Amino acid sequence: MTLLIKGGIVVTADLEHRADVLVDGETIVAVGLDLDPPAGAEIVDASGNYVMPGGIDPHTHMELLFMGTVSADDFEWGTKAALAGGTTTIVDFCIPDPGQRMPDAFRAWEEKAKKAAGDYSFHLAVTGWDEGTSADMAEIVSKGVNSFKHFMAYKGALMVDDDVLFSSFRTCAELGATPLVHAENGDVVAGLQASLLAAGITGPEGHALSRPPMVEAEAATRAIMIAEMAGCPLYVVHTSTREAHEAIARARARGLRVYGEPLIQHLLLDEERYRDPDWLKAAQCVMSPPFRAKSHQDSLWAGLSAGSLQVVATDHCSFTNEQKRMGMSDFTRIPNGTGGLQDRMRMLWTAGVATGRLTPSEFVAVTSTNAAKILNMYPRKGAIAPGADADLVIWDPAATATVSAADQVSRIEYNVFEGFECRGLPAKVYLRGGLAAEGGQPLVQRGTGRFVARKPFAAT
Amino acid sequence: MTLLIKGGIVVTADLEHRADVLVDGETIVAVGLDLDPPAGAEIVDASGNYVMPGGIDPHTHMELLFMGTVSADDFEWGTKAALAGGTTTIVDFCIPDPGQRMPDAFRAWEEKAKKAAGDYSFHLAVTGWDEGTSADMAEIVSKGVNSFKHFMAYKGALMVDDDVLFSSFRTCAELGATPLVHAENGDVVAGLQASLLAAGITGPEGHALSRPPMVEAEAATRAIMIAEMAGCPLYVVHTSTREAHEAIARARARGLRVYGEPLIQHLLLDEERYRDPDWLKAAQCVMSPPFRAKSHQDSLWAGLSAGSLQVVATDHCSFTNEQKRMGMSDFTRIPNGTGGLQDRMRMLWTAGVATGRLTPSEFVAVTSTNAAKILNMYPRKGAIAPGADADLVIWDPAATATVSAADQVSRIEYNVFEGFECRGLPAKVYLRGGLAAEGGQPLVQRGTGRFVARKPFAAT
Amino acid sequence: MTLLIKGGIVVTADLEHRADVLVDGETIVAVGLDLDPPAGAEIVDASGNYVMPGGIDPHTHMELLFMGTVSADDFEWGTKAALAGGTTTIVDFCIPDPGQRMPDAFRAWEEKAKKAAGDYSFHLAVTGWDEGTSADMAEIVSKGVNSFKHFMAYKGALMVDDDVLFSSFRTCAELGATPLVHAENGDVVAGLQASLLAAGITGPEGHALSRPPMVEAEAATRAIMIAEMAGCPLYVVHTSTREAHEAIARARARGLRVYGEPLIQHLLLDEERYRDPDWLKAAQCVMSPPFRAKSHQDSLWAGLSAGSLQVVATDHCSFTNEQKRMGMSDFTRIPNGTGGLQDRMRMLWTAGVATGRLTPSEFVAVTSTNAAKILNMYPRKGAIAPGADADLVIWDPAATATVSAADQVSRIEYNVFEGFECRGLPAKVYLRGGLAAEGGQPLVQRGTGRFVARKPFAAT
Amino acid sequence: MTLLIKGGIVVTADLEHRADVLVDGETIVAVGLDLDPPAGAEIVDASGNYVMPGGIDPHTHMELLFMGTVSADDFEWGTKAALAGGTTTIVDFCIPDPGQRMPDAFRAWEEKAKKAAGDYSFHLAVTGWDEGTSADMAEIVSKGVNSFKHFMAYKGALMVDDDVLFSSFRTCAELGATPLVHAENGDVVAGLQASLLAAGITGPEGHALSRPPMVEAEAATRAIMIAEMAGCPLYVVHTSTREAHEAIARARARGLRVYGEPLIQHLLLDEERYRDPDWLKAAQCVMSPPFRAKSHQDSLWAGLSAGSLQVVATDHCSFTNEQKRMGMSDFTRIPNGTGGLQDRMRMLWTAGVATGRLTPSEFVAVTSTNAAKILNMYPRKGAIAPGADADLVIWDPAATATVSAADQVSRIEYNVFEGFECRGLPAKVYLRGGLAAEGGQPLVQRGTGRFVARKPFAAT
Ligand SMILES: [Zn+2]
Ligand SMILES: [Zn+2]
Ligand SMILES: [Zn+2]
Ligand SMILES: [Zn+2]
Ligand SMILES: [Zn+2]
Ligand SMILES: [Zn+2]
Ligand SMILES: [Zn+2]
Ligand SMILES: [Zn+2]
Repeated sequence: MTLLIKGGIVVTADLEHRADVLVDGETIVAVGLDLDPPAGAEIVDASGNYVMPGGIDPHTHMELLFMGTVSADDFEWGTKAALAGGTTTIVDFCIPDPGQRMPDAFRAWEEKAKKAAGDYSFHLAVTGWDEGTSADMAEIVSKGVNSFKHFMAYKGALMVDDDVLFSSFRTCAELGATPLVHAENGDVVAGLQASLLAAGITGPEGHALSRPPMVEAEAATRAIMIAEMAGCPLYVVHTSTREAHEAIARARARGLRVYGEPLIQHLLLDEERYRDPDWLKAAQCVMSPPFRAKSHQDSLWAGLSAGSLQVVATDHCSFTNEQKRMGMSDFTRIPNGTGGLQDRMRMLWTAGVATGRLTPSEFVAVTSTNAAKILNMYPRKGAIAPGADADLVIWDPAATATVSAADQVSRIEYNVFEGFECRGLPAKVYLRGGLAAEGGQPLVQRGTGRFVARKPFAAT
Repeated sequence: MTLLIKGGIVVTADLEHRADVLVDGETIVAVGLDLDPPAGAEIVDASGNYVMPGGIDPHTHMELLFMGTVSADDFEWGTKAALAGGTTTIVDFCIPDPGQRMPDAFRAWEEKAKKAAGDYSFHLAVTGWDEGTSADMAEIVSKGVNSFKHFMAYKGALMVDDDVLFSSFRTCAELGATPLVHAENGDVVAGLQASLLAAGITGPEGHALSRPPMVEAEAATRAIMIAEMAGCPLYVVHTSTREAHEAIARARARGLRVYGEPLIQHLLLDEERYRDPDWLKAAQCVMSPPFRAKSHQDSLWAGLSAGSLQVVATDHCSFTNEQKRMGMSDFTRIPNGTGGLQDRMRMLWTAGVATGRLTPSEFVAVTSTNAAKILNMYPRKGAIAPGADADLVIWDPAATATVSAADQVSRIEYNVFEGFECRGLPAKVYLRGGLAAEGGQPLVQRGTGRFVARKPFAAT
Repeated sequence: MTLLIKGGIVVTADLEHRADVLVDGETIVAVGLDLDPPAGAEIVDASGNYVMPGGIDPHTHMELLFMGTVSADDFEWGTKAALAGGTTTIVDFCIPDPGQRMPDAFRAWEEKAKKAAGDYSFHLAVTGWDEGTSADMAEIVSKGVNSFKHFMAYKGALMVDDDVLFSSFRTCAELGATPLVHAENGDVVAGLQASLLAAGITGPEGHALSRPPMVEAEAATRAIMIAEMAGCPLYVVHTSTREAHEAIARARARGLRVYGEPLIQHLLLDEERYRDPDWLKAAQCVMSPPFRAKSHQDSLWAGLSAGSLQVVATDHCSFTNEQKRMGMSDFTRIPNGTGGLQDRMRMLWTAGVATGRLTPSEFVAVTSTNAAKILNMYPRKGAIAPGADADLVIWDPAATATVSAADQVSRIEYNVFEGFECRGLPAKVYLRGGLAAEGGQPLVQRGTGRFVARKPFAAT
Repeated sequence: MTLLIKGGIVVTADLEHRADVLVDGETIVAVGLDLDPPAGAEIVDASGNYVMPGGIDPHTHMELLFMGTVSADDFEWGTKAALAGGTTTIVDFCIPDPGQRMPDAFRAWEEKAKKAAGDYSFHLAVTGWDEGTSADMAEIVSKGVNSFKHFMAYKGALMVDDDVLFSSFRTCAELGATPLVHAENGDVVAGLQASLLAAGITGPEGHALSRPPMVEAEAATRAIMIAEMAGCPLYVVHTSTREAHEAIARARARGLRVYGEPLIQHLLLDEERYRDPDWLKAAQCVMSPPFRAKSHQDSLWAGLSAGSLQVVATDHCSFTNEQKRMGMSDFTRIPNGTGGLQDRMRMLWTAGVATGRLTPSEFVAVTSTNAAKILNMYPRKGAIAPGADADLVIWDPAATATVSAADQVSRIEYNVFEGFECRGLPAKVYLRGGLAAEGGQPLVQRGTGRFVARKPFAAT
């Protein structure tokens, strides 16, 4: 089937220009001025709108068993929410169960992901180290995964120590893979949690108090220095503090390939949420790192325009109200996570582009292209160029909507952005040439998504 | 006339992919896989080579009256040297004579530039301030110049004080223009020059001693802070020190639009040159800022890959041996400047891409695209996209050459890179669709170049 | 006459211990446990109290012609206020009139200072540079002044440019003298003043808006770098911002002898004062630099305990309400200055020692000993040791008072600390062995004070 | 017995002045000009010399079982070497055996220390954490130890993780004790050791390669941040890198009470030592952290004069050639440690005071007084004041000597400072009023030393 998107402003990370986009089957075949429609082509009028690459969310958790419960959105509903919001590809964290080998976990994730409506790729979590781990990592790389996640928090569960970090980072260097870190000092968090509970602080405000900014600054700084000694790049997920951002910027200025990923939540929401008198509303906002004081937000926005922070993600890991209530008497038992896949692009456009903080090209860079480049799926994903997958969003900068859980795709009952007014919405979303969402409604079925294999870089 | 460049790897700042480029007249009309040649099209085989945007050198001085003498390369020979090296556009500094109004200087520069073989644009220098200056700047902007240069050094000649800087920067903010600074503390330089001469140090080594790294670090820091208070972006030309780079990186991480420009000379040459026992060889290297200790080079390279430094320039301002000898008994009278236009791209490829420090896309970014974006001539210049000027370089990564003044285009007798082995050379260079150089030889006549008007950005 | 102060806790910058202090004439002759009173000695009971060196205020302006008017407190009333507050020595700024040579200004200051009730020393201001300046500075050093002040602000009046700074700093290096800077970028201040007035902002809030923190950060950073290139130490007066403090701390950590001086006003008062609806109250607070946002105060306090800031001063330069009213329609005409000499020590004890931020020894260091050391009048001043001048304060840590202009010594009608509750007051103050104040009342006559000559350090 | 030291220059951290010192029994009773000798007093002529407080070395290891062998100098010979060099008090690290409770270790150390010829105090090492540890720490504090050491390196032996650090630091905050850290990332060190050995690098150069500066920078930064979150001060032992120093300086400038301790070895010796072709000479220099590149030394010296580093220690832990040879085929088995107790003061005077880098008062501060203050044994130790222990050094600034193992007190056969020319030596050393060394020869017997109990500070 052939599709010609005409009359829009094509915006990529590199360029904003008036052009038509011609799609043949799943692939873009031409980008140019006044392209002639091939016979039988469907013609879509994009005039007055932007045409941009489908969004990529480099950080999601679908159907994740975490803190004793399974997150509410599986690959079907998560990717449908993503598509509704303009995101055509997610990169999900494949996390082995205790004792499980990576290849087995990978197979389990392949299985779960068969439900996906949108495209997906995986990061693999390194949750321990034994003689076989390095061979497991090589096997995983051969399957099309070039990035490995390390939790510096969640003591007693996923957390790994510096020995594992250093071993794994050096293996990444040999494999041409990129390590990712959840940067919080889990020992300090555990210590603070214990004393807060002992002091009778059991509500969601305790969650923020147990994870102060310094907890993240320390871990990010440590991971960067260990990566420098290991000779590998580093990707710091959910960078939420000024201090972590500055550590990343300093490392980059002395030549390290270090990346930082603010979440849309941290860009827009602040720690006041945890003092909401309505327990449930506060608990819905419990995620790690917690929302921060407003003073951190300016630094994150500055990083996006300066290029010292590269990608905006969601850490989408949704839990229902019932699940959140597991922690009613103990904040450490509130499942950590919120939604966001449907909201990321519209919220960032509203608060970033509509306000003049970011250009449309910078918006594309941080929502799609940079992730594709850093994770090595570019230009198959993240590009509008001949040969690229025809993942496209027709973006209407004048459209408005109010965020509401009532009409969201996600399976949970709330939305932390509830009531925000958005200006700028995805009108139509194409996944590999097919119309996958329109007017915020997903149109494709479960199983439509495909795995995106990502090769390693050259070893360092 | 129609031209089809087939079979190469098209490399832009954003993307490296196999594609053909179709040119109609002066303009690129299509980029795609296996494009069909229109009837009568000339077909150029680029297989095995890269196809990239023509280089842009954002910092040159053609036929400049400076230190009482006129630089040796005028617009004809300078742009021919540029074309021979793959650079299709230069941005030259229009510097008013003492007492001359900007519009008059602009007309004088227009006149001189009529000789140009390659395309050109101008920055205008602000060398003083009176009631009319701000109106002059507005007039200049209306003529297609959106960037203004400020010398913080050259006391008694071009140097301006902080009052002029702040006035001009605020005017830039109102006009949507970008200020540039030559960042050296001219008062300190003058003081050090006087004492060195008084101490009997008259040779070229005195040039470096009179302009230590701190002289630049201070001025760059000061200009950044003044720009922050004025609410405008800032472009720091010839950033040569780690300290200046770090000041730029820190400013960017707190949200400022500050840019830094290393010269190819500072990336590769060091201060040992000034201790050459051959006076003339040392004097040939006299430029400001001087070459630095090697420890600064790593920081500059890191900035290019991190994005905290954006462009590589030459500050091409060539003086003959005879001119250099004006300062035989006094280093302060050695005309400041070297060549470089023919060497910038081949030297950067050799030391940057061939060594793995930079990717080909990063090479394009720092030699062409970033300058075009920052100076607002993108995507007319710096892009390979339909509608862009057909300024193209067919780059042969396997070709080699040894730098030698004997076969250079520039009118001077020496080359500071003499003897360097290059790997990676421009095979063919097209200027607006016409073959402008081949095998390092310029093929176009004086007068072929055109002025590139650059609009202001939105006022801030 | 002989005096024995018995039973107190002697507190110096170095030590807190129970000891008696024996004074013979103007000099301390013994410090020890249970000293026997010589025959005829007056015995003073200090039990329950601290005995500390008399305070030194390194930064005052007595009877200064400034902004067209003369500050209200002359050497008599200023030093009486100082003595009432526990400060036995002030260091005043001798500022030449336009065109006046330094030695002439010095003589004029000697004349004015004959009225002093307390001891005094001078800094000399360098307000320009000609062939004779360096010889003038040498002559001034020979008269017992080893410190030279430079105004980087007050454009058109006292301000000097970087050329003067560098010349003077290098002369200081040769003479073993220490340069001081008032660090604000006067060009930027002038530019901001003009636009604020043009925008119709004429009230005291304009004063703060015209001197933002960056104005100080820039100038302090510049002065430090120029001092580093000149090879001399540097003393930054009235350090009021976090950024300036950090610049000082960084310079120290790379080996420079750089000092910072917070004022008691900046430690305790904030910029809200300039928004007081009562014009006069706001105008009373007008001084340069202005009071800052509260966030800067923590940094200043940290510097005092860390040792990266060394002295607390007042910049006492008092103007009456009538004088302040000169600027009713134009904030740039409000005379800059407030009082503070009587308040410095009680306010710092209350907010510093009584709260646990500073130890008593640190209090002595920053109110007396460090100034004496940095300015080279130690241990004659600032010490409790045999041979030192018997400048002593018996400090009652339990005494309380409320600050009120109604009972202050200064000749002005207001006090910016009005209403503050103090805990910790000077009970008795001795100047060279004589009781000079008691219970906050000065007891000595004009003319009692003596000039404190200060030798240069070794040249660098 | 009564002693009068006459005619010297008394130099303390605070003051340098001509004065006599009168000692009665073990205690200083008077300091003053021209003191009259009591009947029967022994009079010592100190004219032409300095009189200073006995040195305090805050970091030693006597008779330590480490890496399977016991260090060669026990409390007798270590303290005799110390006295010979002017150091009258050492603070030794009491390190529990695996499984041993702190109070038992304390008793073992009491036993070993009975041999001491000079005075001593202890730090206690926290080598693990269980329910009883916090009570053990309280008991230890009650015995006169207010400082606890934590090893972040020596994986598999003494190393503790962040959980132990945070628990212990918080306990320190409650107890008013100060934590100390050996700051090296032990996991990374272990990883690097393994790969170096695997690569066949078995010689002493591997020791330095396995402990690069970043290993220390990371750990120091981490410990500071953990201390900040725990609300306690922090003392970083053997600070050897610029990066660690800068982390300390930054922490201090934001208000933390963080201290840094360069060793005399790191101030003067560099990593070239590990490339000595004579294996044994290189092995003699093996200690942790290793000697560094020269560029770090400037930063350490700057810290001492700026006050951002406070004390100079030795980490005296001596091993004989035979013991060093345990690691002939594997650098990880070379016992870590060198001597230094006899050399610290003469080397620091020679390289610091005789060169003008430090004043005599700064010398006293960093060799004695600051340690006494930070560790809370001031003014009993570290002071020349009535009531203080009569630990005194008569220092001859003109005396010279060449360092040689041939005439040293320590039991080992070598000295890493062999051949250095010293200018400035201790002529006589008094311990609590008794002549304990003269001309570099110890004069007191084993058992003369006494334990110095140190109280906690106020809890934070
Ligand atoms: Zn996470
Ligand atoms: Zn996550
Ligand atoms: Zn220049
Ligand atoms: Zn130039
Ligand atoms: Zn001032
Ligand atoms: Zn002043
Ligand atoms: Zn250690
Ligand atoms: Zn040790």
